[in-house]
Amino acid sequence: MRQTNLESRNKVFLGSFVHSKVLDELEYLHQTAVFVDKSGTIVAIEKDCDESKARETVLPRLGWAEADVEVVKAKEGQFFFPGFIDTHIHAPQYPNAGIFGSSTLLQWLKTYTFPMEASLSEAAKARRVYTRVIRKTLSHGTTCAAYYATIDVSSTNLLADLCMGFGQRALIGRVCMDSELSPDYYRDASPEASIAATKATIAHIRSIDPAFSLIRPVITPRFAPACTLPLLRQLGALAEETALPVQTHISENKPEIALVQELFPRSLTGAADGSYAAVYDAAGLLKPRTVLAHAVHLTEGEADLVAARGAKVSHCPCSNSALTSGAAPVRRLLLDRGIVCGLGTDVSGGYSASVLEAARQAALVSRHVAFGPGGQERDKLGVEEVLFLATRGGAEAVGLGDKVGGFEVGMEWDAQLIGLGAIREDGEEEEVDDEEGGGGGAGNVDVFGWESWPERVAKWVYAGDDRNTIKVWVKGRLVHQRK
Amino acid sequence: MRQTNLESRNKVFLGSFVHSKVLDELEYLHQTAVFVDKSGTIVAIEKDCDESKARETVLPRLGWAEADVEVVKAKEGQFFFPGFIDTHIHAPQYPNAGIFGSSTLLQWLKTYTFPMEASLSEAAKARRVYTRVIRKTLSHGTTCAAYYATIDVSSTNLLADLCMGFGQRALIGRVCMDSELSPDYYRDASPEASIAATKATIAHIRSIDPAFSLIRPVITPRFAPACTLPLLRQLGALAEETALPVQTHISENKPEIALVQELFPRSLTGAADGSYAAVYDAAGLLKPRTVLAHAVHLTEGEADLVAARGAKVSHCPCSNSALTSGAAPVRRLLLDRGIVCGLGTDVSGGYSASVLEAARQAALVSRHVAFGPGGQERDKLGVEEVLFLATRGGAEAVGLGDKVGGFEVGMEWDAQLIGLGAIREDGEEEEVDDEEGGGGGAGNVDVFGWESWPERVAKWVYAGDDRNTIKVWVKGRLVHQRK
Repeated sequence: MRQTNLESRNKVFLGSFVHSKVLDELEYLHQTAVFVDKSGTIVAIEKDCDESKARETVLPRLGWAEADVEVVKAKEGQFFFPGFIDTHIHAPQYPNAGIFGSSTLLQWLKTYTFPMEASLSEAAKARRVYTRVIRKTLSHGTTCAAYYATIDVSSTNLLADLCMGFGQRALIGRVCMDSELSPDYYRDASPEASIAATKATIAHIRSIDPAFSLIRPVITPRFAPACTLPLLRQLGALAEETALPVQTHISENKPEIALVQELFPRSLTGAADGSYAAVYDAAGLLKPRTVLAHAVHLTEGEADLVAARGAKVSHCPCSNSALTSGAAPVRRLLLDRGIVCGLGTDVSGGYSASVLEAARQAALVSRHVAFGPGGQERDKLGVEEVLFLATRGGAEAVGLGDKVGGFEVGMEWDAQLIGLGAIREDGEEEEVDDEEGGGGGAGNVDVFGWESWPERVAKWVYAGDDRNTIKVWVKGRLVHQRK
Repeated sequence: MRQTNLESRNKVFLGSFVHSKVLDELEYLHQTAVFVDKSGTIVAIEKDCDESKARETVLPRLGWAEADVEVVKAKEGQFFFPGFIDTHIHAPQYPNAGIFGSSTLLQWLKTYTFPMEASLSEAAKARRVYTRVIRKTLSHGTTCAAYYATIDVSSTNLLADLCMGFGQRALIGRVCMDSELSPDYYRDASPEASIAATKATIAHIRSIDPAFSLIRPVITPRFAPACTLPLLRQLGALAEETALPVQTHISENKPEIALVQELFPRSLTGAADGSYAAVYDAAGLLKPRTVLAHAVHLTEGEADLVAARGAKVSHCPCSNSALTSGAAPVRRLLLDRGIVCGLGTDVSGGYSASVLEAARQAALVSRHVAFGPGGQERDKLGVEEVLFLATRGGAEAVGLGDKVGGFEVGMEWDAQLIGLGAIREDGEEEEVDDEEGGGGGAGNVDVFGWESWPERVAKWVYAGDDRNTIKVWVKGRLVHQRK
C-alpha cells in the first residue's frame, strides 16, 4: 500500500495558533496566517494577517497562484495546535485497554499481554486491531506515534503499511525478545533470528518509504529481562551500524529492577555498575537516539548516565498509576538533569490511547510526586509544561525535533484544529455546525466567554477529549476529520 | 417551578442489568425484566424474562393494562446501571472546572472560588451556570447530587427549582460562612443571619417538595475555618432540631488542618482533643447524617471518632490530586473502620463533573496510596469497588441507601442505559443508530466482541465518558437522552 502523501494544493491556515515556545511557555498567535507548501512544509508565518492580506501580499511573494491554494480558517475561539507525539504505544495491546485488574508489570505481561500480542500473528486480526489503533490515535490528535508491534514480521510490516496509508507519522518497532521470561509460544528463536527478523522489517519499511519521510523503523529490544545479553549487544551493534533509533523500557517497577540485577550482574555485562541503565549502556543501547519508557525508579547514578549519553525518556503516567508501578519525578529529570522527555500513552499498560489524557495525568501524577516522600512544590508540572512534553518534548525524544512539534518555518505541518464548547446565555450548549462534525456536541469543555486564552487551554487539558479535535493534518495532508 | 414528577405510564425495562451487590462484587442480570410503576418505584424484577413473558405473565399479576405500559429495551451489549451519586459538588464553581493553576486549597479559595461564587448572586448568571451544571451532570449519569450552592438565598433556591424542573434528585445546601477567612464581599453577616438564611432555603424547598421526595435541604457549614464556633454550634442545633442531613469538608490539606488547630483550640471548643473531627463533634455536627468531604489526612483517632459517630465520607480523588491535597486511604476507611464512603466530583477543586471520572481516579489514586509510604497491596480499589462507591456507597452516604443505588424491589428507578462502542471486522467503528444519539460515535470504549462482561465494564470505567450514557432516568422519569 503506497500513500498519496502529497496533496495537490498549497495551503493557508488562518486564525489563532497556540504552541510551545519553551517548557513553561505557550505562544498565542492570533490573526495569523501559516503557509504550507505541497510537500507539507511551513514556508511562511505572517502575524496580523487576514485572508485578503494573505492573498494580496503573501501569495505573490511565494509565487503561489490563487487557484492553487486551499484556505483553512479556524473560527473564533478555535485554534491550531501542533499534533501530539505519542512516544510509547503498543499497537497490538489496544484491545486490552482498561483490562489489567489489580496486576503489576510482570504478572500483567503473562496474563494479558503476551497472549494478545501472540494472537496478532493472525493477519485478519492484526489488520482489524491496527486499523482501529491508527484511526483512534489520529482522532485524538496523535500525528506521530512510536509503536511497538509484535515479534511477527508480517504483521509488523502491515502496521507500517497501514500507517503509511492512513498518513500517520510513525516509528515502527518489531519487538525483540529471546529470553525465557517470554513463553515458548511467543519468543524469538535466537539472537540471530531476532536480528534477521528485525532487518526484514527495516527492509520492508525502506521499500515503502525509502527516505523514512513518514515511517521509520526503530530497533526495539522489549526490555532487558526479555532479552539475552547477546541479543542486546547485537541490537546495539545494529543501531550503531544503521544509525536507526532505539526504543525500550527501563525501571518501570521494583520487581522488574530486581530481576534485571539478578539476570545481568556486572560479572556478566562488564558494566560500570549493576544498574539497569548500565546494562543498556554496556550493550551499546544507551544513545541520543534511544527512547527509554517509564524511568520511574532511576537512581541518581542512572539519571546521570542517561543524561550523559543523551538518551531520552518517555513518561507514561497513565500506565505507571494503573499498573501500580510508581510516580516518575519527571520535572527533576527535565530540570535537574536536562533529560529530554516526551509523553507516552503506553497502551495497554496505559488505559487510554489519548496523549491529552497522558498530559492530564502527567500533571496530576506530578502532584503526587510533590506531596510524596521528598517531594517539593517544584515537582509539579503545569498545563504549559505537559503540553510541551506532548509536542516539542515528544518530537525531540523521537528524533524529530527539527521537523515537528511546533509552528516554525521549515517545519512540517503536523497539526490539529481544536474547538471548545460554548455555553449560551440560557445555559445550553451552542450548537456545533455539521460541517465540522456535528453530533455529540463539543464534548466536556464548556467556555462561558469570560475566560482568558490560557484558561481556555487549561480547560481543554483538564476536560478535553477527541471531540475537541476537529481536524488533523500530517505533513500537510488531512488525515482525520471529526464525524 | 413545579415538577411533573410522575410520568403517565408504568414501565418495563428489558435486557441486561449490572449493579453492585457488595463492595467488591457486581451482579450481572441478563434477560431480565424490571417493572417500574408510575411513582418510579421498582415493583418487580424477573429473571429469564423476555417481552412476551413480561406481557403474558407479569403484567396480569401486577394488574397493569398493556396499553398503560412503556417498554424500554437495552440492545445486545447495552446494560442498565444504577444512576451515579455525586456526594460532593459545588454547583457555582462549575465555570472554573480545570482552572486552578498550581494553587492549593486556601490560596485557590481566595483566587478562584470566592470571586466566582460571589458573582452568582446575579440571577441571570446563576441561572445560566446552574442550568449548565444540572444538564451536564445528568448527561454523565448523575441522578443524585449533593450540591453546595452559595451564601445567596435566592440563587440557592433557584438551584433547587432547577433541579426540580430538570428532575435531578438533589441535596441543596446554602453555604454557611461567617468567619474572617472569607472576604468582606462574600460572608454571612453573623451566625444569626446565617441561620436565618439557611432556614429560608429550607422553607423554600419545603414549599416546592413538601415530602423532600426529590429535593432535600442539607445544612452546610462550608468548613470549620470559614465558620465561627457559635455558627457551628447553632448549625449543629439546627441539624438536631430538623433531622436534616449535614455536609462539610474535613482534613483536605495540611495547612488547612493547622489553621483549624490554631482557630479552634480545646480551650475554646471544649472538645475531647484538638483534632479537626473533634471540632465538628463538639459542635454537634458529627452525626450519621453527616457527609464529610475529603478526609485525606485523618489521624487514627479521628477515623475512630468519625466511625463511632457513623458519619460518612465523600472521597474526591480528582480534586485531591489537582489541588495537591494528598491521597486519601479510602480502602482502609472502608474496611478497617467500616466508614461508609461515596465519591464526589468536588467541582471545581475537581476538574470534571463526571462521577465516572471520579471512579477512575479513585482506582488510580488508590494505587498511589498502595505504593506510597506505608502503603500495601490491599489499598488498591478495583473496578467493582469504585462502582460500588459511585452508586450504593454514595446513596448510603447521602442517606438514600434504601431508595437508590441498586436494582431492588421497593427502590426507586434512578438508572442509566449504558452503550459501548463495537468494532467491526474491518477495524472501523459500528455505526451508532440515530435513535439513540447518533453523532460523535460511541466514544472511546471499543469492544471487539471477545471480552467478558467484567472486561467490558472495566473498559467502560477506564475509557468511558458521557457518550456511553445513552439515557438517564430519575424516579422513573426520563431526564436525559443523548443527542
